[in-house]
Amino acid sequence: MAKEPYKIGLAGLGTVGLGVVRMLEANGATIAQRAGRPVEIKAVSARNRSKDRGVDLSGCDWVDDPKDLAIADVDCVVEVMGGEGDPALSLTHNALKQKKDVVTANKALLAHYGFDLAVLAENNGVSLAYEAAIAGGIPIVKSLREGFAGNLIDSVEGILNGTSNFILSEMRARGEGFKSVLKDAQDKGYAEADPTYDVDGVDAAHKLTLLSALAFGIKPDFERVRIKGIRAITSFDIAFATELGFRIKLLGVARRKNGKIIQVVEPCLIGKDDSLAHIDGALNAVLVKGDFLEESMSVGWGAGQGPTASSIISDIVDLARGEGRPMFGIPAVMLTEAEWLPPGDLTGQFYLRLNVLDQPGVVAEVSSILRDHDISIEAFIQRGRDPGQPVPLVITTHEASQKQIAKACDLMTNIPAVIEPPCLMRIEGA
Amino acid sequence: MAKEPYKIGLAGLGTVGLGVVRMLEANGATIAQRAGRPVEIKAVSARNRSKDRGVDLSGCDWVDDPKDLAIADVDCVVEVMGGEGDPALSLTHNALKQKKDVVTANKALLAHYGFDLAVLAENNGVSLAYEAAIAGGIPIVKSLREGFAGNLIDSVEGILNGTSNFILSEMRARGEGFKSVLKDAQDKGYAEADPTYDVDGVDAAHKLTLLSALAFGIKPDFERVRIKGIRAITSFDIAFATELGFRIKLLGVARRKNGKIIQVVEPCLIGKDDSLAHIDGALNAVLVKGDFLEESMSVGWGAGQGPTASSIISDIVDLARGEGRPMFGIPAVMLTEAEWLPPGDLTGQFYLRLNVLDQPGVVAEVSSILRDHDISIEAFIQRGRDPGQPVPLVITTHEASQKQIAKACDLMTNIPAVIEPPCLMRIEGA
Repeated sequence: MAKEPYKIGLAGLGTVGLGVVRMLEANGATIAQRAGRPVEIKAVSARNRSKDRGVDLSGCDWVDDPKDLAIADVDCVVEVMGGEGDPALSLTHNALKQKKDVVTANKALLAHYGFDLAVLAENNGVSLAYEAAIAGGIPIVKSLREGFAGNLIDSVEGILNGTSNFILSEMRARGEGFKSVLKDAQDKGYAEADPTYDVDGVDAAHKLTLLSALAFGIKPDFERVRIKGIRAITSFDIAFATELGFRIKLLGVARRKNGKIIQVVEPCLIGKDDSLAHIDGALNAVLVKGDFLEESMSVGWGAGQGPTASSIISDIVDLARGEGRPMFGIPAVMLTEAEWLPPGDLTGQFYLRLNVLDQPGVVAEVSSILRDHDISIEAFIQRGRDPGQPVPLVITTHEASQKQIAKACDLMTNIPAVIEPPCLMRIEGA
Repeated sequence: MAKEPYKIGLAGLGTVGLGVVRMLEANGATIAQRAGRPVEIKAVSARNRSKDRGVDLSGCDWVDDPKDLAIADVDCVVEVMGGEGDPALSLTHNALKQKKDVVTANKALLAHYGFDLAVLAENNGVSLAYEAAIAGGIPIVKSLREGFAGNLIDSVEGILNGTSNFILSEMRARGEGFKSVLKDAQDKGYAEADPTYDVDGVDAAHKLTLLSALAFGIKPDFERVRIKGIRAITSFDIAFATELGFRIKLLGVARRKNGKIIQVVEPCLIGKDDSLAHIDGALNAVLVKGDFLEESMSVGWGAGQGPTASSIISDIVDLARGEGRPMFGIPAVMLTEAEWLPPGDLTGQFYLRLNVLDQPGVVAEVSSILRDHDISIEAFIQRGRDPGQPVPLVITTHEASQKQIAKACDLMTNIPAVIEPPCLMRIEGA
């Protein structure tokens, strides 16, 4: 007696949507064994109906307006159109109201509306699953929600954006600057024509918002992520960091400290022997620390057709089995309003690089500003001499607060010989 | 309207059992939120009733014979006594027959009786969960069973035994031999007085048996793991491997090749930039390759009170929610009998170290044996000269089969100047 199939309405037939179709085509029998019932795509919606996509969709209903998938004869809507507003938002909203499960890869949407959607899903007795929204091929949502379920989580940190990690890795490997590596990445299709979300840390912040809610049982709050991207990093910084025994990585860090939460996405220096230091290219990695678990790291491809489809199918299998979990691990009504630690209170060692005119007195001015802010210097490197010309000056500090060092940097900007704003990065884990 | 608690019978109050008690004490509220109901230890059994363990067990029934937990008023038996036979086997068997879920950390038991127990669990409508049995703090069972559910898995490989990884890491760091590092590890409590299971690869093989069944949907078969431990590795090998750009790791590898499965636990050389090369000390790591997933690696502590308890609680939360899965991801009746690839058919490059008397003609004899077996040499290193005395001779080969190279090694053993059996290791991933 065969069980009823679990019927999917697929919104979006781009790279990811086609990946889902191909995976069901290729591995449908295994998926049915694991789901306990067949999984079938019943309806699809995409902009261009007539385009040849190399897959057989003849058995599916075609829906012109994706929002209509919410009222189609399906058990689950898979939303892989993207975009943080409509039609993705309306479709998700309506599908949940129609008591259909939703599987989505849309981190931007969830970072902004995750809490309301979680409430809506629970009120309608359905699930909103999003493994594919964070670090594609890494089952990190499942790990935080289920695998580490009994732990009090201390921190979640990671390399959450493959494009910026690729750029930083290439800058290091090739000794080239940000702009030329970005252009090359765009030419090769590794970076989008508008790379803002990737290189400015917004995409990583969307993911961090969700990880933080999962880890700490708090309402997701994207506005509370301090975000800094990688545009200001030069090949000098990469070379200096390497020389000092570090790697530069764009890290997302969500941490609990004395009951308060801090969420930061920013380029950091990490020791070359740290777990995350070896994660190069377009890989993603997430490191979780918990009170019993101690620490656990997962590494995989954060994006791409296969890894993203793999995560979507994993969610579909859970839902087809009737094993959806609350979106953030605990019922939405139990999620707390976090107490936030102001990002300025984050302490650590810092890396500071100034472009200064090589003239007498600059070092004295810079070091007195640091002294006046009670910041002690660990190392001070000036490479090359070129009287009257710009030279880089690198300082690493002992423990200081973000607030102190930011104030000091502001004052340094006023020194006439300092010709551009300082490049400041925290040394994570130091 | 509070839900009924999920009642646990805990068999074993050693390090792991106490970890479970402590975790429920410390994080009971979070665990209840995630499980949707309270989790309570209702009955315990351990050898010594009067021992002060520093935890409050006054609310629990004490059961003298652990096997009686099967008939206690509990929903789930947590078996953390260990041992591959009785009483663990009888208890597990009886508990399943009494329609109680079982959570176990007992890899030896499952490697031997996993299939029968899976059938028994399913026939009784209950679950047998074992996240803690493999790589403690890493949710690899969940990842393979659920997170990568839609993939056709190509391989699972990993560092599955913390003790032997610790020993190999220390040998490299300190330049010392196996025996002295083992003794030190024993003195510090990192290795057991009888280290056989750890250093001879048996423990890793137990875990690999289960990973392989999960990955490929086959009946677990411990007898089909070719096992070689790390006792024959010398500080010479470690130093040579380093010089050649490799690390030596005890790897468990389960791979599908042309529809056939191979399972091997053996020390291998891996490139120093490979993902698993940086996993040092007592860490465990598992690398999974799948057709859509591409690859995903997880790293964490493979043993220890906290990480193991964390995995047990994760299983308990799943079961308390009524979300147990078939033990190997698909119903036991659907597990297939694997077709096995003979280990001798495994091909790769090889590392070969001989202890030879430094006398004329040895190199000629060794190289003609290799030539006669159609094995071509990539590198040949003889370090130091000491006429008439033993010196190490290291060879790396181009692609060859295990069978070919093993035959060649047998013949080399017959050369009078070769004073001990060759040390042969595969170069994984080459």
